[in-house]
Amino acid sequence: MTGVGSSQTVHKVNFSPPRSFSTVLKSALKETFFPDDPFKQFENESRKKRAKKAIQYFIPIFEWLPKYNFQLFKFDLLAGITIASLAIPQGISYAKLANIPAIVGLYSSFVPPLIYAVFGSSKHLAVGTVAASSLLMGSTIEEKVSPTTDPTLYLNLVFTATFFAGIFETALGVLRLGIVVDFLSHSTITGFMGGTAIIIILQQLKGIFGLTHFTTKTDVVSVLHAVFANRSEVRIHNFPILSYILALKTSKFFGTHMARHLLSLTLATWRWESAVLGIIYLAFLMFCRYLKKKNPRLFWVSAMAPLVTVVTGCLFAYFTHAEKHGIQIVGDLKKGLNPISIKDLNFSSEYLGATLKAGIITAILSMSEGIAIGRSFAIMTNQQTDGNKEMLAFGLMNIVGSFTSCYLTTGPFSKSAVNFSAGCKTAMSNVVMSLCMMLTLLVLAPLFKYTPLVALSAIIISAMLGLIDYEEAYRLFKVDKFDFVICMSGMIGVAFISMDIGLLISVGLAIVRALLYISRPATTKLVKIPNSSLYRDVEQYPGENEVPGVLVLQMGSPIYFANCSYIKERILRYIRDEQSVADGKANIIEHLLLDLGGVTSIDMTGVETLSEIRRNLELKGIKMAIIDPRINVLEKLTIAKFIDVLGKEFVFLSIEDAIESCRFMLNESKEKINGDSNLA
Amino acid sequence: MTGVGSSQTVHKVNFSPPRSFSTVLKSALKETFFPDDPFKQFENESRKKRAKKAIQYFIPIFEWLPKYNFQLFKFDLLAGITIASLAIPQGISYAKLANIPAIVGLYSSFVPPLIYAVFGSSKHLAVGTVAASSLLMGSTIEEKVSPTTDPTLYLNLVFTATFFAGIFETALGVLRLGIVVDFLSHSTITGFMGGTAIIIILQQLKGIFGLTHFTTKTDVVSVLHAVFANRSEVRIHNFPILSYILALKTSKFFGTHMARHLLSLTLATWRWESAVLGIIYLAFLMFCRYLKKKNPRLFWVSAMAPLVTVVTGCLFAYFTHAEKHGIQIVGDLKKGLNPISIKDLNFSSEYLGATLKAGIITAILSMSEGIAIGRSFAIMTNQQTDGNKEMLAFGLMNIVGSFTSCYLTTGPFSKSAVNFSAGCKTAMSNVVMSLCMMLTLLVLAPLFKYTPLVALSAIIISAMLGLIDYEEAYRLFKVDKFDFVICMSGMIGVAFISMDIGLLISVGLAIVRALLYISRPATTKLVKIPNSSLYRDVEQYPGENEVPGVLVLQMGSPIYFANCSYIKERILRYIRDEQSVADGKANIIEHLLLDLGGVTSIDMTGVETLSEIRRNLELKGIKMAIIDPRINVLEKLTIAKFIDVLGKEFVFLSIEDAIESCRFMLNESKEKINGDSNLA
Repeated sequence: MTGVGSSQTVHKVNFSPPRSFSTVLKSALKETFFPDDPFKQFENESRKKRAKKAIQYFIPIFEWLPKYNFQLFKFDLLAGITIASLAIPQGISYAKLANIPAIVGLYSSFVPPLIYAVFGSSKHLAVGTVAASSLLMGSTIEEKVSPTTDPTLYLNLVFTATFFAGIFETALGVLRLGIVVDFLSHSTITGFMGGTAIIIILQQLKGIFGLTHFTTKTDVVSVLHAVFANRSEVRIHNFPILSYILALKTSKFFGTHMARHLLSLTLATWRWESAVLGIIYLAFLMFCRYLKKKNPRLFWVSAMAPLVTVVTGCLFAYFTHAEKHGIQIVGDLKKGLNPISIKDLNFSSEYLGATLKAGIITAILSMSEGIAIGRSFAIMTNQQTDGNKEMLAFGLMNIVGSFTSCYLTTGPFSKSAVNFSAGCKTAMSNVVMSLCMMLTLLVLAPLFKYTPLVALSAIIISAMLGLIDYEEAYRLFKVDKFDFVICMSGMIGVAFISMDIGLLISVGLAIVRALLYISRPATTKLVKIPNSSLYRDVEQYPGENEVPGVLVLQMGSPIYFANCSYIKERILRYIRDEQSVADGKANIIEHLLLDLGGVTSIDMTGVETLSEIRRNLELKGIKMAIIDPRINVLEKLTIAKFIDVLGKEFVFLSIEDAIESCRFMLNESKEKINGDSNLA
Repeated sequence: MTGVGSSQTVHKVNFSPPRSFSTVLKSALKETFFPDDPFKQFENESRKKRAKKAIQYFIPIFEWLPKYNFQLFKFDLLAGITIASLAIPQGISYAKLANIPAIVGLYSSFVPPLIYAVFGSSKHLAVGTVAASSLLMGSTIEEKVSPTTDPTLYLNLVFTATFFAGIFETALGVLRLGIVVDFLSHSTITGFMGGTAIIIILQQLKGIFGLTHFTTKTDVVSVLHAVFANRSEVRIHNFPILSYILALKTSKFFGTHMARHLLSLTLATWRWESAVLGIIYLAFLMFCRYLKKKNPRLFWVSAMAPLVTVVTGCLFAYFTHAEKHGIQIVGDLKKGLNPISIKDLNFSSEYLGATLKAGIITAILSMSEGIAIGRSFAIMTNQQTDGNKEMLAFGLMNIVGSFTSCYLTTGPFSKSAVNFSAGCKTAMSNVVMSLCMMLTLLVLAPLFKYTPLVALSAIIISAMLGLIDYEEAYRLFKVDKFDFVICMSGMIGVAFISMDIGLLISVGLAIVRALLYISRPATTKLVKIPNSSLYRDVEQYPGENEVPGVLVLQMGSPIYFANCSYIKERILRYIRDEQSVADGKANIIEHLLLDLGGVTSIDMTGVETLSEIRRNLELKGIKMAIIDPRINVLEKLTIAKFIDVLGKEFVFLSIEDAIESCRFMLNESKEKINGDSNLA
C-alpha cells in the first residue's frame, strides 16, 4: 500500500477475484425465491428420509397427523365448534354481500377447510369467507350480469372467478412469487380495510332499514343516495329533493339539517320495525365485543354472539311472522351437501374479463389477509409459516371450492383470532368446523330460513366496526406522514371511487415512494466522535472535522441509475459547501473519502458515476478514496476496471485507515497538494 | 446504561428528541427537488443583488454576456460555423426521416438555437434535430395521417406534437421533475440508441437503392420485407418468392445465399446508379470518421464531410441531371425565413391522442439526450448544469419552435461533441450557427434542391453507425448481466416491435429491477477482523465469531414494506443456521446485534417488523440490540415507541460497545441466560 505511513496498522482489503456469475446468480435467485431456505432440512439425509421429508414439507398434514393425540384433539374440538358457530352467521351474511344465495356461504365453510387442513402450514388459521373480497367480487361481476335478473349466470360467474383466484394463488405459490403480496404494505391494508368497512356498513343500512331497491355501486355517495332517495326515481325527479341529491353528490351542503330533511322525506320507505330490531341486535353484539375487550377470557361470548343473534332472530321471525311486518328474511335454504359446480364454470369470452379481474384482485387481497394472519400467529407462537406454501394451500382450496359450489375463501382475521383464542392446536380445528357445517347442511339448514336480514346486517356491521382502525391511522400519522397518506388515499379511494381503484391508488403511491426513496438515498457527512475510532453523521453527532482538508461522506444505498445524477450533484455540493465554509486555506478539501459500507448494490450507471466523480475531483485537485466496499460492489468495481483506475491504494477497509494515510500524504507532499488545490 | 460493564468505554447514542415534521419534510423536499441547492448563492445578499442573481439564474445569458469579449467570440465563431456546416445536411436528412419537407429541417436550426442561447445553461450544447426523435415522431403520427396523401395536415400535426413536447418539457422543468429523466438508465439508452440506429440504417436502404414505394413501419421485419419485396404486391403473390418472404419474416433461412437469391429477383426495382453513388459517399464519410478516430485534432474533417457530401452531390446531380437516371433529389426548397405556424397547430380531438403521445415520448427521449450530453461536458470542464433549467430551456425553444415552423429540437450528441471539439466557449456558438442558417435560408436554400437523397442516406447511415455501441454492450455483459438484459431488451424491442414499446420494455425492466432490489436488501453476518475493532462481512473476510453466543448482522437498506417479511425470515434463518452449525452449548445464540448503520430509511411496516422480531427472539430467549441507527431511523423508532420497548440500554453506537456489554452480561448471569436459551 503506497502512500501510507504505518502500514502495519492498516487492514488489508480483500481484493480476491470476483465470484463466478453462476455463483452470484444462484445466491441472488435463492434470496429472491427461497428466503426461508426450505431445503436446508433435506441436506445430508438418506434418499428415503429425504422423500419422506419432501412429502411432509409439501403436505403438512403428514407432518402433524402422526404425532396427533387425544389431548390435542380436545382443544381442537372446542376451537372447531367455536369457529363453526361463527361460520354459520358469517357464511350467510357475507354471501349476501356478494349477492349470492345464503346457502353458498354455508357450503364455503364445508369443503375448503378440509383441503386447507391437508395442505395448510399454519396451525391457527381458520378458513372462511371474507367481507371485503365478497363485496369486491360481487360488485365486479355485477358490472356484467345482474344477480337479480339472471341469478344462475351470476352465480356461475362467481364460481368461475373463484376458480381463477385459485389458479392464480396456486401459480404464485408454485412460482414462489410470495413477493407480490409483500407489495401490499401495512398502511395500504389498514386504509383499504377501513374504506371497505365504511362502505360495507353503509350497505347494511339497506338491511337495517329494510329497503327493497338498492344501488349496485359501492361508493359512499351512491350508497347514501340510495339510502336517502330510495323512492321510485320518478318520484324524485319531479321533486325538489333532486337538487339536494346533487348537492349531496358534491357532498357540499352535507350537514345534519340536510340529513334530517332527507330523513323526513324518505322515512316513508323505511320500515321502523326492521330498524328497531337491527338497533337492538347491534347493541347486543357491541356489548359482547365490549365484554371481550374488557376480559379477553370471555372471547367465546363475542364468538357465540352472532349465532345467538341468528337463532333468536329465526325464532322471533318464525313466531311473529316478521316477514309480514316488513322484516325481510333469508328465505328457503335447501338441505344437503355442496352440489358439484365444475360444469357450471363459465369461460365464455364475454365474461372472461370480469371474472379474471374479480378473481385476481380478490385473490391478492384474500391471500395477503390469510398470509398476514398466519404469519402473525406463527410469530406469536414462535413457529414458521411459508407464505408460498400458504398460497398453494389457498389456491388448491379455492380450485376445489369452485368445483363444489363454494366461493372465495381464505383465512379471515376475525375467525382465525377466535380459533387462536379458543386454543386450537392444529389444523384439525378446521376439520371439526367442517364437520359441524356438514351437520348443519344436512339437518339444520332449513331452520335458518327465517333468519332476518336485519340480524345479518347487524352482525356484519359489528364485525366491520372492528376493522376501522383509528388508532393505527393516528399512529401512522404520528410516525410516518407518507405512510399515513398511503393509508388515507386507500381508504378514501375505496370509499368514494371503488374498491379496486382505491387499492391501486394506495399500492401505486407506496411503489412511487419506494422509487423516490431509491432515487434519493441519504448521503451524510461523517465526523469523528471524540476519543473513539467512530465516524458518525455530523447532523446526528455534531462535532469538528479533526483532519482539515479531508471530507468523509457516507453513501446511501443503492447506487443506481435512478439516483446517479443526484449522487453526483450531492457530492459536488458537499465539496462546494465545505470549501465555502471559510475561505481559509485550511478548508480546501484535498481528500474525499466515500464510505461505501452501507452500499449493498451498484449498477453499471453507478460505476460510471463514481468514475465521473473521480475525474471531476481530479480536475479540482482532490484525491478520492473509497472505504469498505461490500463484496458485490467491490466485484462490480473490479470488473469495470474502476479499481485499477482509482488505484488499490485508495481502497480502504476502515475510515481510520483512510484518514491515517491521508494525513500521511498531506504531510508528505504539502506543496504539491497546495499546488493542485489552487487549480480547484 | 444498565447491564454494561465498563460504561466509560461506551459511547453515548444521541437520543435527542426527533426533529419537527416540517424540518424533516423541508429537507426531504429539498433533496428531492433541489439536490443542487440552487438558492445557496442567494443567501446573505441584499435584495437588489438577489434580484439580479435570480434573473441571472433563470436567464443565464445575463450571466455570461456581460463578461463576453472578442477573445471568446473568435472561438465561438469557428465553432458556430463548424456546427452550421453540420446543421444543414443533418437538418435536411432528419427532416426526411420524419417525412416532412427538407426545408423544415433547416428552419429548425434557425430559431431554437437563439432561444437556447438565452435560456440554456450549458456552454457546449449545440441545438439541432435528432434522428431517433424525428423517426419516432414521424412513425407515431403516420399511424393517423399519411404524409403522402395529406402532407399539410401531417406537417401541422408534427408542429402540434412539437408544441406538446415543449409544454411537457417546460412543465417538468418548472416542477423540477428532472427525476423523470433519471429513470432512463445508461443501459436503456445504449440499447434504445442501438436499436434505433439499426432500424434507421435499414430505412436508408430505401434511399441507397432509390426505391420508390416503402413501408411506414419501422420494425426490421417489415423494412427488410419492403426492401426485398418492393415490387408491386401482385407480382410477388404469383411468385415463389412469397414463400421466401414468409421464411424471411420468421428470419429462419435468412442467409447469404437467400439474400443473393432475393437480390437477383428484386434488382429490377433497385437503381444501381443510386446504389453506387451511395456506397462511394458512405466510404468517404466512414473514412473521415476513421481519420478523426486516428487523430482527434482532425475532428473538423469529419465535421465538414457531410456538407462536402451534400455540395458535391448537388453539383453532380445538377450537371448529370441525375434525377433522370433514377437518382432521386430533394426537390424545391423555397427561399425565405421560417413562416409563422402558430395558426397551424391542430388540437382536434381526433389527432390529440397521437400528437400528445408523440410529443411526450419524444420529449422525454430528446430531453434525456440533451441533459446527458450537457452534464457530461459540464463534468469534463468542471462546471455545473442544472437538469431542470435545461428542460425549461428545451421546452421554451420547442414551444417557440412550434410557432415558427420548426419541429422537435434538442442537444444532439454528435453536434454538441463537434461544438465542443471545435472549442466553443459559450452558447454564442449557437447564435453564430443560427445566423449561418439564416443566410442559408435567405440565399443558398434553392441550391440544395439538387441534393441527392442517396447522399442524405449515406450521411444518416454513417452517423447511425456511430450510435451502435458494441463495446458498451459487451462491457455491460461483463460487468452487470441484468443491465445487459435491460439494454438488449430495449434494442431488440425497438428493432423488432416498435420504438416506444422497446423503450417501455427497457424502462419497465429497469424499474422492476429497482423494486426487486428494494424487496431483497442484502443482510450479512459480520465477524471481527483479527487485531482490529472492525466487523466485516464474513463472506468477504472469512473469520471466526470470537464471542460465542453473539450474532452480529448488518442490515441492508431500506427496511420497507416490500422487504419486511423477507428480512424477518432472513434473520430467523441466520439464527437457525447459527444454532445448527454445531449442537455444542457454545453455539446457542444469546444476543442478536443488528447493525443499522447502513439503513438509511425505515417505514411503519419496517418498525413493526423489528418489534415482531424482538418479540419472537424474546420467546427464544435471545436478547436483541440495535447498533448505530441513523438519525431518521432512530427518530421513527423513537416515535413508534420501539426504543422504549427495546430499552435504551440495547441501542449502541458501535458494534464494539455492544459486544462489550454482551460479554459482560454473558459472564454476569450465565445461569439465567442458559435457562432462557434452553427454551429456544
